[in-house]
Formats: sequence, structure tokens, C-alpha cells
Amino acid sequence: MSFTQSSLKIGELATGQDLSIPIFSYECTRSKAPSVYIQANVHGAEVQGNAVIYQLMKLLEQYTVCGDITLVPLANPLGINQKSGEFTLGRFDPITGVNWNREYLDHQVDVEVWYKAHNLLSDADLITQFKAMLLEACYTRLNSEWGITTGHQQAVNLQVMAHQADIVLDLHTGPKSCKHLYCPEYDVRAASFFSIPYTLLIPNDFGGAMDESIFCPWWQLSEHMKSTGRDLKVPVSAFTLELGSQENINLEDALVDAKGILAYLSERGVIEQSLEPATMKRYACYLKDYKKFHSPLGGMVEYLAEVGEPLKLGAPLANILRLDLYDTDKALTPLSLSQDCVPILHFASASVYQGTELYKVMTKVFEI
Amino acid sequence: MSFTQSSLKIGELATGQDLSIPIFSYECTRSKAPSVYIQANVHGAEVQGNAVIYQLMKLLEQYTVCGDITLVPLANPLGINQKSGEFTLGRFDPITGVNWNREYLDHQVDVEVWYKAHNLLSDADLITQFKAMLLEACYTRLNSEWGITTGHQQAVNLQVMAHQADIVLDLHTGPKSCKHLYCPEYDVRAASFFSIPYTLLIPNDFGGAMDESIFCPWWQLSEHMKSTGRDLKVPVSAFTLELGSQENINLEDALVDAKGILAYLSERGVIEQSLEPATMKRYACYLKDYKKFHSPLGGMVEYLAEVGEPLKLGAPLANILRLDLYDTDKALTPLSLSQDCVPILHFASASVYQGTELYKVMTKVFEI
Amino acid sequence: MSFTQSSLKIGELATGQDLSIPIFSYECTRSKAPSVYIQANVHGAEVQGNAVIYQLMKLLEQYTVCGDITLVPLANPLGINQKSGEFTLGRFDPITGVNWNREYLDHQVDVEVWYKAHNLLSDADLITQFKAMLLEACYTRLNSEWGITTGHQQAVNLQVMAHQADIVLDLHTGPKSCKHLYCPEYDVRAASFFSIPYTLLIPNDFGGAMDESIFCPWWQLSEHMKSTGRDLKVPVSAFTLELGSQENINLEDALVDAKGILAYLSERGVIEQSLEPATMKRYACYLKDYKKFHSPLGGMVEYLAEVGEPLKLGAPLANILRLDLYDTDKALTPLSLSQDCVPILHFASASVYQGTELYKVMTKVFEI
Amino acid sequence: MSFTQSSLKIGELATGQDLSIPIFSYECTRSKAPSVYIQANVHGAEVQGNAVIYQLMKLLEQYTVCGDITLVPLANPLGINQKSGEFTLGRFDPITGVNWNREYLDHQVDVEVWYKAHNLLSDADLITQFKAMLLEACYTRLNSEWGITTGHQQAVNLQVMAHQADIVLDLHTGPKSCKHLYCPEYDVRAASFFSIPYTLLIPNDFGGAMDESIFCPWWQLSEHMKSTGRDLKVPVSAFTLELGSQENINLEDALVDAKGILAYLSERGVIEQSLEPATMKRYACYLKDYKKFHSPLGGMVEYLAEVGEPLKLGAPLANILRLDLYDTDKALTPLSLSQDCVPILHFASASVYQGTELYKVMTKVFEI
Repeated sequence: MSFTQSSLKIGELATGQDLSIPIFSYECTRSKAPSVYIQANVHGAEVQGNAVIYQLMKLLEQYTVCGDITLVPLANPLGINQKSGEFTLGRFDPITGVNWNREYLDHQVDVEVWYKAHNLLSDADLITQFKAMLLEACYTRLNSEWGITTGHQQAVNLQVMAHQADIVLDLHTGPKSCKHLYCPEYDVRAASFFSIPYTLLIPNDFGGAMDESIFCPWWQLSEHMKSTGRDLKVPVSAFTLELGSQENINLEDALVDAKGILAYLSERGVIEQSLEPATMKRYACYLKDYKKFHSPLGGMVEYLAEVGEPLKLGAPLANILRLDLYDTDKALTPLSLSQDCVPILHFASASVYQGTELYKVMTKVFEI
Repeated sequence: MSFTQSSLKIGELATGQDLSIPIFSYECTRSKAPSVYIQANVHGAEVQGNAVIYQLMKLLEQYTVCGDITLVPLANPLGINQKSGEFTLGRFDPITGVNWNREYLDHQVDVEVWYKAHNLLSDADLITQFKAMLLEACYTRLNSEWGITTGHQQAVNLQVMAHQADIVLDLHTGPKSCKHLYCPEYDVRAASFFSIPYTLLIPNDFGGAMDESIFCPWWQLSEHMKSTGRDLKVPVSAFTLELGSQENINLEDALVDAKGILAYLSERGVIEQSLEPATMKRYACYLKDYKKFHSPLGGMVEYLAEVGEPLKLGAPLANILRLDLYDTDKALTPLSLSQDCVPILHFASASVYQGTELYKVMTKVFEI
Repeated sequence: MSFTQSSLKIGELATGQDLSIPIFSYECTRSKAPSVYIQANVHGAEVQGNAVIYQLMKLLEQYTVCGDITLVPLANPLGINQKSGEFTLGRFDPITGVNWNREYLDHQVDVEVWYKAHNLLSDADLITQFKAMLLEACYTRLNSEWGITTGHQQAVNLQVMAHQADIVLDLHTGPKSCKHLYCPEYDVRAASFFSIPYTLLIPNDFGGAMDESIFCPWWQLSEHMKSTGRDLKVPVSAFTLELGSQENINLEDALVDAKGILAYLSERGVIEQSLEPATMKRYACYLKDYKKFHSPLGGMVEYLAEVGEPLKLGAPLANILRLDLYDTDKALTPLSLSQDCVPILHFASASVYQGTELYKVMTKVFEI
Repeated sequence: MSFTQSSLKIGELATGQDLSIPIFSYECTRSKAPSVYIQANVHGAEVQGNAVIYQLMKLLEQYTVCGDITLVPLANPLGINQKSGEFTLGRFDPITGVNWNREYLDHQVDVEVWYKAHNLLSDADLITQFKAMLLEACYTRLNSEWGITTGHQQAVNLQVMAHQADIVLDLHTGPKSCKHLYCPEYDVRAASFFSIPYTLLIPNDFGGAMDESIFCPWWQLSEHMKSTGRDLKVPVSAFTLELGSQENINLEDALVDAKGILAYLSERGVIEQSLEPATMKRYACYLKDYKKFHSPLGGMVEYLAEVGEPLKLGAPLANILRLDLYDTDKALTPLSLSQDCVPILHFASASVYQGTELYKVMTKVFEI
């Protein structure tokens, strides 16, 4: 197989230049396996997903693909091209401050009302109608009489593509981070296929991210139907993969993650060949047990705890160096936590204000 | 009377330097009128509120003040001191992108449960207890085991002071803006005292701003009690005053607004002397009729519609100049709206991306 | 006549997208008047020059043009598209901090050596050879073995076009500014044609700007030749026009400046028709008498002196408001200058650090 | 011995807050060895120098110190506290773009004239007078009638302290960098004491940095005197130490560098005890052979060449990944250099514009 490249316009710059996104797609002509949508680099500094898509395309060309595939690297051109100093300032809209990954449409479907109007439909028709309704809502948003913000326009255009797929992967990274996966609680089995050691199990709440914008309406529908006594397996799978640290391209490591994704696609029947997932221990915690530790003081930071390595209660997490307090007991403040955890990521800079999010750690971790 | 100056630490910088805020307070020793809390410059570029507080202090010193007063200019030192190019980048936390005016604690009080537990109390005791509960929630937030973000720490410290007052004024400005007031629907009468021609009537929803953080819990309590047949007038008044454009200090105009505030404080009995509000027509619309118009294309903008001046359907709003399209009919695109409105503010820059919020306009405006 | 549009690639973004610049050119087929190069918007926020080029193109189409014309609006796409908050952060490269108007090639021609090798040439051949040498140096710079910085690549590409013209106009604006002209001392007569009241007479030093990059080598050659007893009038004219304030598009005012440029082009024979310059008083001072006044303290600024209006020694320039010093004699510090001047521009923001460039003023002003 | 802490005010923020710098000093009461000035963190993200000063203070307290010592960590509070996204935007003034390390006073002493007026003085008196003249020039700059920029005020205040010392160390880091030393050619012997493998030998030109601002005037004087037949050893030593990568605090590694500095101070007699420098090979090249390689295209970067490791001609330097060009021979562009080199540092971000400075490499490296 080979991919067809096209381009989607999602905005215009002040100079008039189009903001557009490259799209690589494969349309399967035979009886269909689930369709796949994968995007990368919605946060401008989180570039490694592009390398993963690159490796994945090269791998896929060697396999028999049974489902439609849409790949969208470089998904946020405005964010990717926005430097501030030597780093990419790509986490939020530089004008509004809104996180690029919180711009997706929150459908807020009243599933009770909707289901009451459609409960005579078969499962297949129900799915078709619900998906059509979600897409319609996106198109309505895009064509608002009063216009649409730069960020929404981009995000909802991506969302339109994602709503049409059965499997949605959003490739991100952390700041300084080990690999971890955001996985909805209903789909935990999927976590054993990716080459990712840590999984966050997320509940059925819309926080604004791509994966949530895709699965939340379906999950809500499924839960409501269950309460009426009818079972509908959530028909979409949507995950955010955090593939290490931002500001890093590593092709070899990208191959590892491309293979993990391939193993999942194999499991789902998207490729005909059977592929084994990587043999590794995999751990998880619930989102409510994923804790942000904020720096209790401002200063220079020596990060001591390694990301991805379990850390015992009281073990050294970080030192805060305060030269202005030399010769006092505050010159060097060792920080530790009061419970066992696994540090998943830490802040990117070596100096912090009081309150800066220093580490995010999993607590109450269990093997899956 | 005269003010006592103190200082509140609300953070620490990376160098270790304290982030602190100047506070001017007056404690009234006689029988008490409502207490007052006024802050300014929570958005770093919105400096005019400082000039208003300056003029207000000078005025108040000439009157008999019957209530406690707390004045907090320069309320966001991190935002005020953050330049990016020649302008102040003070609208959001430079690390996280979070709007400084969306960092207040959302109490999310379950008023039904709370009232059930306190419904035997007198109105006065009810108010005392509810206020204590709100303050307690703020202190709990400030002392979280996992720390608190830089923005929350600052905002909740301000909120603690505001919760202790009966009247709360948050002084802001727009980008390029005429004066306008955010006023909760229950308190519309207050709008006739300030020297402000346009009022937005806002509903009982927490959007994250200071004024909402103050009145929402009380309003919710009041509404719930009403549903149980007991009347409790919302005992706090909280407003956001938008005092013209950002990046502007004008002492003469500040005196006009200080006098408007004084007229309101006079009406509320905070100063003994009786002061007349400025004679002017005042207009309002509901928040749902306050519309954001986003630029339908990227380019250079000539702003044509004056803020504060009614604009007829189809009248020129702005031109978008596109040199790259010279000699086409897109070289100069005139923009207009399809209904009557009053433009309240427009974007600060003369060039926009597609989707940039170009104008905010009031529609369905009525006199109050 | 009508313009032909083309496009020049001057870089590539991180997403791979080309950075390109629209070019409008007219090639005159008849016997030649001087050729003209005009560019605008090298600083991203200084957009008004685009409107002037727009009006100029519309005007020129109504006249008989006798020389080649090259017009380059939107000359710095990276700078124009770089927002930081609501303003365009377009004054310097966001990665390196280098002012976009200091990136031109400094030829540093050893005119003595060069002239010794070419002194037998006629004036016409001398000019041809010298121009070829300047262009060659630009091409060498563009093709350096070790590459070339983003800023140099853009600037030297613009410079290549400008070196080929006899008349070079670089359209800028100040922050909050009245109109003023940078004019080399040898070319002062030109100042009486533009619609610009204030002129800075600049000496023969390379400061890094476009105009200097064009006229300095020629002026140095001319001066050296004069010292050997041979007269060569500097064969190029290059000016920077500061057309009011940044972040402003005003088509009507753009027409005024387009007519001023047209009057100059008429005087130079570029258009056949004879056009009168605007009747207005015009003033000048030498660059050494153009003074930057830095704020003696940090604080909020009320700008009092109007740009373009003469200001007497001791008259109010600005107030610095310091709420933290309320009730001291530093609460409001009036600033003034110790000599007569004309304020030409002031800082864009209403708050400053100690040392921020508050005003630039002309001293020792004379009528021209 | 122990250090005395004081504080130097070098500016004021918009809120009125002082910008001040902590200073740790030791005054030696006995007969004097050379005096020492060490500063760190003039670039806001280059924090490791603070850790080195911390370790150095702890070490020095255990030795007999024979010279005056002044230590200035956190030397640029404005730069250190300026975040833009998750990183410190501390390389240049956020308003002007001027590199904080190019703000020092360029004395431009006419050494010929000065020496003619002082040539009858003894060496000791000559040095006293010359130093006094340098300091006087700094004070004149600080007290300019028209004020002084924020950056100059800070830099010249630091320079005043440095001019009073015999040994000046300015602690920096690169972006992603191995350790290297900027050393004036006349002082190459010093390079064998620091724990730094690579040295850049710099000529007698003022580029604007601290070290140059200190040694250039003296070196120029010394060279001029030599041309008149009188020998004066340059009486100051000034170096810039680049201690690895920015955004990194590592106390253990800081100890290594503190010991290297101590070994140099021991050699110079500043501490009584004799200390051996670290045993290691040390290499150098001349500044003219230190090359900047700019990215020939925009895209995502996989950095392949390790900093500090010799790289053969043609060996892989970096890959540029261009997803938009997938399925062409430009999808992955391997970059290499056409001569042997040692990569010293590379760009901090994993995506670049065309022209971004990708690597800085030493060529024509020799052992010292």
C-alpha cells in the first residue's frame, strides 16, 4: 500500500499565508476493518510524534492494511512555528493563552433526549445517526455566524476527521517525561499493546482534549443505554500517547513506538498480519491518583528523581537552591513526598516560581 | 481619614525575590456601613485602575468614611512586570497560558446540602456561617498538601480579602475599549451610579472571574432559599469595571471614574456625604447578547467602527487589507454586521489571523 | 501601467512551509528614469507602510511611469506573523533577539583600495562596477559554506533588490510617533517633497539599517574620490520613512503619504507628470541631537507631551505614578527636560522599568 | 573565612519593586594576592554558575584566602525571572531584544593619546590611573543626563565591580553544550587549570561581553606600550566559562567546576594552599576557526553528533525530518560537514527555521 498526500487549510496568517496541514491517507477498498486517525504535534514543541508517524508509514507500507488510515503530522502549524527564544512556545495560543489541546468542541449531548428520539434504531443505525449528529455539530461550529476562533477552527477541523474514525491516537509528549498513555477506563485492555509502561485511566469527563472529545459522547450514550437495559459497546477507541520528552526527535525510539502502535492496530484487525506487543511490565493508576506537586518555594531546581522510576516515600525528589539565602538552612531545600509514587514527568526549566508544577507523579500504582 | 499601607506576599520568583502586593486599608471604628474591597491591574497591561485607586484615595481622604476599606492596586506583580516586546504580556500566566482572571476558586457549594444543615439559623448567623465556610475553603486551597499553582496562590489570596467585604470592585480595562460594567442581574440598580455608559448583565454562572467568585455562591444560596420560600437578599455586591483601554494612564479620566465609584459608595452609605452620580444615559444588554466577532480572514485591519458608538446593520465595521491579493476583489474586504449593535471593544493589534476576535459588540441594547 | 506580481522565497519555517514575500514590479520599456525600490513592514507591527504601498499602486496606475519600480509590502513574514499576547512581536528575531532592521550586510568596502584599482573608469563604468561588486558581496553572503542566519537571509535578499535601484524607500513607523524621515545629510533636499514634517539628518555611518546599507558604500566612495579631486555625486538615494505609529492601518492617511512619495518620484522624473509636494513647514535636526530619554524610575506612565508638538524646557513631559509610594512625594513624579525639544515618539506601553526608553526628542531643531 | 552578604540595586520594575542582586564578599586584611570577581547567570537560563558559586563558597571557607573576593550569583534578576512558556527567556532584554551579555560599556580608549599623557608614570601608577579612568567612564555612563537603558544600567554596575578585580570569571552555559572556555590569547596558560576540556582563544576585539569589556582596554594599552618599546604585562585576567547546558542544575558537577576554579585561584596565589588542576587533555582553537553551522532547511531535527566528541569530515551531524515531503528524497536529509571538527554546542530546540544556528563547532583544534 502507499499513502496519498493532501493538504487541509485550517487558517490564515496575518500576511495572508494559508495555515495548512499535510494529510496522509489510505483508503482500503476491501471489506473494512476499523478506520484509524492519528495526529501529532498539536503542542508545538512535542515533535516526536511526527517521527513516529514517519516510522509508522514506512512500516505500514510493508503490511496488508485492511482499514482506512488518516495520518496528520505537524497538526498545529501556528504552534510549531512559534519560537520564543530558543524553544518552541507551542503549548497555547500566543494571543489568548488557550491550550491548543483544550480547543475541541464539547458536544454536551443530552444523551437521554437523543436516545429517546432514536431508541428504535438498530445498533448499526444508532451509531450512524449519532456519528452524523456529532459531525453536524462540528460543521455548525465551524460555520458560526459570528466566526470561530483561530484555535477552535483548527481543532474542530481535526475533530471532524477524528470523528470519522474508529480508532483515534493523539501523539503528544510531556516536558521532561517518561512514556505514558491516557486511556479511558472502558478501554484498559488496549494499554497492553502499546510500547508504553505507564497508563493513566481516565473517567468519562470532558476535559477538553482530543481523545475526550471523541470518546466522551459515545461513552455517555453507552452508559445511558446501559441504564435503560440496552448494551452498546463504546464503538470508538481514543487515546493520548505521551511519547517521552518535548523538543526531541529520535528516529530509533520512534520506531519502537511505531511498532507498539502497529501491535495495537494488528490486534484490532487493521493490519492483516499478527504482531506481538513488546514484552514489558505495564502499570497504571487512576487519574484521581495522578498528582501535581507544586514547588513550595521559588528558586533553582536540581531534579533528582528520575521519571519512570518508582520513588519511595521520603526519597529525594528535588533540591531547591537559593543563593540569596546562603548561610541559612534555606540555602538548599531538599524536597520529598509523603507517599510512594512513580514520577512521570517534571518541569522543563531548572528554575521555578513558587507554585510552578514541579513534578507529576502516579500514586497508588498497580500492574495491568 | 487616612490609609494604612501594608504588604501581602503572594509568591516567590525564581531569584527568590518575594512577589508582594501593596495594600491600603482603612478600618472604621464607628458603627459600620458595608465594607469595601477594590483591586486593580490583575491583568498586567490594564493599568488605569491604579490611577483610579490613586484618585479615589485622594478623594476619600476628604470625606467621612463609615465602612472598612481595602484597596489593592498593582494586584498582579508577575503580570505587570512581564514585557514581551514593548507591551505588557500580562493577560495570562506566561508559563501555563491561564488567564490571570480565571484563577479564582470555584466554590461549587452544594447550597442545598449546606442550607439543609443551617436552615435554622437567623439571616445574620446564616451569613456569618456561609462567609466563614467560603473563607475556610480558600484557606484549604492555599494549604493543599500538593501545593498550589502560582496563579491560584495569588488569586485565592486576593479572594480571601474580597470575601470579607460587602462590596467588591475589580478594576480592569479592555484592549481598545469604551467603558463598560459587568453587573450581576440581581444588582442592576447599582449600574446607575458608576460613570459608565454600558452595562453587561451577567447571569449566575461561575466563569472564573473575581466578581463571579464572590457573588456566585451567595446568589446560588439566595436562589435556593427562595425556592424553599425564604427570602435572603444577596448580601454582597461584586462588579468588574472596564475603564477604557489597556496601556493607558490618564489621571483626569481616572478622577471621573473615582467620582463614579464614590457616588456608588455614597449610595451604599460607605461615605456619609451624599453624592450625585454623573448625569448620563446608561445602556445595557444581557451577556448572551454580547457577541464576539472573529475575523473571517487573516490580514491587516483598519478599524472603522468607534467603540461606544451605536452601529447600524450593514455599516462599516472594519476593512481587511490584503496586499498579497492586490488586483483581486479581495485586496480590500469591508466587514459589517447583520444586526444593529454597539461595538464595545476591538482587538489591540492592526493585523490578525483568521479567527482573531476582532470586535465585541452589544446587541439588543436597552436603556437602563 | 499595471504591476506584475511575483513572489520571493526568503526562508522556511519549522513545518517546512516557505517564507515568501509578495513583489509587485513594473518594468519601464522606454528610456529610463531612476529605478525605485520600496519596502514595508520589516518590523512586524509597523503595518502602515503596506497601506501606503496599496495607495501608491493605485495612484501610479493613473500616471505615466518612466522608471522601473519594485514594491515589497509585508517584507518580513516571520515578524508579521509573530504575536505575543495581543500585539505583534515583530521588532526582533524571536530566537536571537536581533533587530530585523540590523541584519543587512555591512559591506565595509575599502574604498581607497577599490578606487585605486578602478580610477581609470568613466563615472558610468565606475558606477556599474561598484554596483556589481556590492551585489556580488550579497550573493557571496547568501551562499556561505556555513549557511546564513534566518535574519540575514531575509535581509540580504531584500538588499539585493534594493542595490539594483536608484531610489530606495524603507517604510517604517515608530511606537507612538509622529511622522519623521531619516535622510542622509547629502540628500537633504529630498526632505521637502515627502509629506513628513520632521527630518533626521544622518551621517555617513553604517548603523545596520536598510537605507544605510544602500547609501553608505556609495557615500564613502564619493567622499574618497572627492579627497582625490574627482567629484562623483552619490548616485543612490535611500531613506527611511517613519509613518506614524505602529499597530495602525489608516487608508486615508496612507493616501497622504503615498502622494508625498509620488511628489518625490515626480521631482526625480520617475513619473512624467509634475506634482507639487504638500505645503507644510518642515523641520530637521542632526542625528547627534536626537536624544533618547530613559525613565529615571520604574512605574506607571502618563504620557503628557504630544509627539510632533514643540515642548519648552521644563514643560510637562510625563508623570510616573507609583502607588507603592502613596503618601510620599514620590507617589506622582512629574518629568520634564532641561532644554527645548520636539518629542518625536514615546514608548508604547503605559508602564516602564527604570531605564526604559520613554521619549525620543529632537533638540536644536531648525526649519528646512 | 566567611562571606559577607550585601545587595546591589540595579533597577526598578514597573510595579516599583527594586531589581537587586545578592553579593557575597570577602575582604582580605593581610598582604594582598590578586582580587577576584565572579558572576553567574547573566543569561537567565544559564543557571549552573549559581551552583558553582555555591560549591565554591563552601570550598573557600575551608582554605586560607589571601585576596579579596566578590561573588555575584543571580546577576540578572530580570532575565532570570522572565519565563515564556516553560523555559526561561533570559538571553535578551524582552523589550529591546538586546543580548544581556552585549550591554557592557565599550571604553574605546584611545590608548595612544592616553599613554602619551601618562608615559612618565611607573607601572604601578600607570595601572592605578588607567583603572581609575575605566571606572570613571563607567560612572559617567551610569549618570548620563538622558538616563541609561535598563540593560546598560545593570551591566555597567556589574562592570564597575569587575574593573576593581584582577581576576574576572563570568559563568555561563551553552544551549546544549559541552564545557568550554573563552580565553584571551595572551592568557592561554590559564586554560590548563580549569576543569574544562575545550578552549576558544579570543583576539583583542571588543565583542560586547563582560570578559572583553575588562581585558580589551588593558590589552590594547599593553600592545601599544610594547610598540613604544615598553613592556607591561596585561594586569587583568578575564574569562568566560561555559559550564555545560542551560536549564540545568547539577550540584555534583558544580563541585567539579568549583574545584577547577579553585585550582586556578591557587595557581594565582589567591588561596594559600596548593591545589592541582584536574588531569585531563585540553584542546583549543582560535575564535576564527569556531564555526556556526546554520540549518540549510527548516524542519524537525534529530541531533546526532555528540557535543565534545570529535567528528570526522562527512560523519553524521544531524537529520532534518520533513514529513511534508514524505515519499520524496527530502523526507529525511542527513547533514554532515566538509571538515573535521569538534561540535561544542547545538541548538536547544528540535525544530528549526531555515538558517537557525544548528551547531557551533571547533575546527583546526590543537592540544594545549
